[in-house]
Amino acid sequence: MNSEVNLEELTSRLKEDPYARFLGVEIEQIKKGYARCSLVVTEDMLNFVGLLHGGLVFSLADVAFSAASNSDHLPSYALDVSGSFLKTAQVGDRLVAEASLIHTTKRTGVYRMEVRRGDDLIALFNGTVFRKVSGE
Amino acid sequence: MNSEVNLEELTSRLKEDPYARFLGVEIEQIKKGYARCSLVVTEDMLNFVGLLHGGLVFSLADVAFSAASNSDHLPSYALDVSGSFLKTAQVGDRLVAEASLIHTTKRTGVYRMEVRRGDDLIALFNGTVFRKVSGE
Amino acid sequence: MNSEVNLEELTSRLKEDPYARFLGVEIEQIKKGYARCSLVVTEDMLNFVGLLHGGLVFSLADVAFSAASNSDHLPSYALDVSGSFLKTAQVGDRLVAEASLIHTTKRTGVYRMEVRRGDDLIALFNGTVFRKVSGE
Amino acid sequence: MNSEVNLEELTSRLKEDPYARFLGVEIEQIKKGYARCSLVVTEDMLNFVGLLHGGLVFSLADVAFSAASNSDHLPSYALDVSGSFLKTAQVGDRLVAEASLIHTTKRTGVYRMEVRRGDDLIALFNGTVFRKVSGE
Repeated sequence: MNSEVNLEELTSRLKEDPYARFLGVEIEQIKKGYARCSLVVTEDMLNFVGLLHGGLVFSLADVAFSAASNSDHLPSYALDVSGSFLKTAQVGDRLVAEASLIHTTKRTGVYRMEVRRGDDLIALFNGTVFRKVSGE
Repeated sequence: MNSEVNLEELTSRLKEDPYARFLGVEIEQIKKGYARCSLVVTEDMLNFVGLLHGGLVFSLADVAFSAASNSDHLPSYALDVSGSFLKTAQVGDRLVAEASLIHTTKRTGVYRMEVRRGDDLIALFNGTVFRKVSGE
Repeated sequence: MNSEVNLEELTSRLKEDPYARFLGVEIEQIKKGYARCSLVVTEDMLNFVGLLHGGLVFSLADVAFSAASNSDHLPSYALDVSGSFLKTAQVGDRLVAEASLIHTTKRTGVYRMEVRRGDDLIALFNGTVFRKVSGE
Repeated sequence: MNSEVNLEELTSRLKEDPYARFLGVEIEQIKKGYARCSLVVTEDMLNFVGLLHGGLVFSLADVAFSAASNSDHLPSYALDVSGSFLKTAQVGDRLVAEASLIHTTKRTGVYRMEVRRGDDLIALFNGTVFRKVSGE
């Protein structure tokens, strides 16, 4: 693991992440092996049947995944993700995504992401990253 | 399977899908068990290290997944997804996502999604839907 | 949910599950929404490089998944699974798999499976089932 | 990629894979980036409701995954797997699993596994490996 990740600097950089900003994602907290972020559901985040779009839910989780995995080693790149959609949400609801380290090696890491609205679990995902080492 | 899905009407409705529109996704083709859609990468779709954001790549695939699965039965809701990120892309690149039916029962369906830039495979996902029946 | 699952009878039936017996899996506990089972690693469970075979690790988790999901509704059939392999184990080690309900509807359910050797997490999986209703 | 994998030697070693032998898996063919293996379903491979056990189906696919991924680089270790169960099979049926390389880098690789009985697709899985380099 790269012990030199500067979490303040990482947080600043993630607050400027273009796609996260585009979606209105707020980076709430980044600790080593953990990140929490949130957004408020807008009309733009629904699908054609009026439910929360799965792509949006995953995108929020993915921002947390990126923040948590890069807190452990910079840069960490997503290899694989998997997950389940459990509930929907309404316009105006605030969704919170948390990502937590489950297991790491020097070269890979596994994280769990949970998206909630209040106490309701909306979706859960697992993701695996590759830890890039300079010179590779 | 619900044989009464009107593909013309479904296509019209998907062209008004709020999240797909928000991302600039174009619905190119919907056939029974198949859909193709695309977008052009903008600055807003990058992450904080300047690469294509995984959430955006999945979102594009998810629009195709929704279109293909609802072509077989309306409504079909995503239960599970999984996949891998293989390559990145640049601002200005056009990404094409195709979703194809692998297997269906009356109540569930499995689809494969592939996201390409020209001949390059950028990401691949599998997804499973639940076929909702009225009255449930 | 089918409230009539008789957990004593289910436990008896799972103790006769042919594949679980073939692998030497012990069904330790089944409660509503939860199951725990275990096995002791033998030479037959290694792969050609001398590590624990991924197929065996998943098989143990799958026995727990089957027990937990059928405790909530009988019969429940696995639709999708996903997971990660974190550590290996040695001949003679005892592996314990636990499966826990994360979310259920009348027709589907999501479970998390964790395989441990003592406190070490060896592998984790998520799985989704379909709840079959008689007459379908 | 390690270009020095000796496919004849790998095939010999995989034919002695303890878990594959325990399950009665036959290694039919290994080429660079591809493997095919098979087994005949026995009573021991069923679950408590008389259907093919998911753990067995995955195990067969995992043997093919191991063979294909190690043909590209030795050793390659499974990080993540995901997949769907589509159909069951009967005692006496011959199941064939094929694993094919989808994408590789020097350090990781993605493979697709399909399990068939004749023309019927029984299950499909994706898997990602880490390519271990000596000295790590």
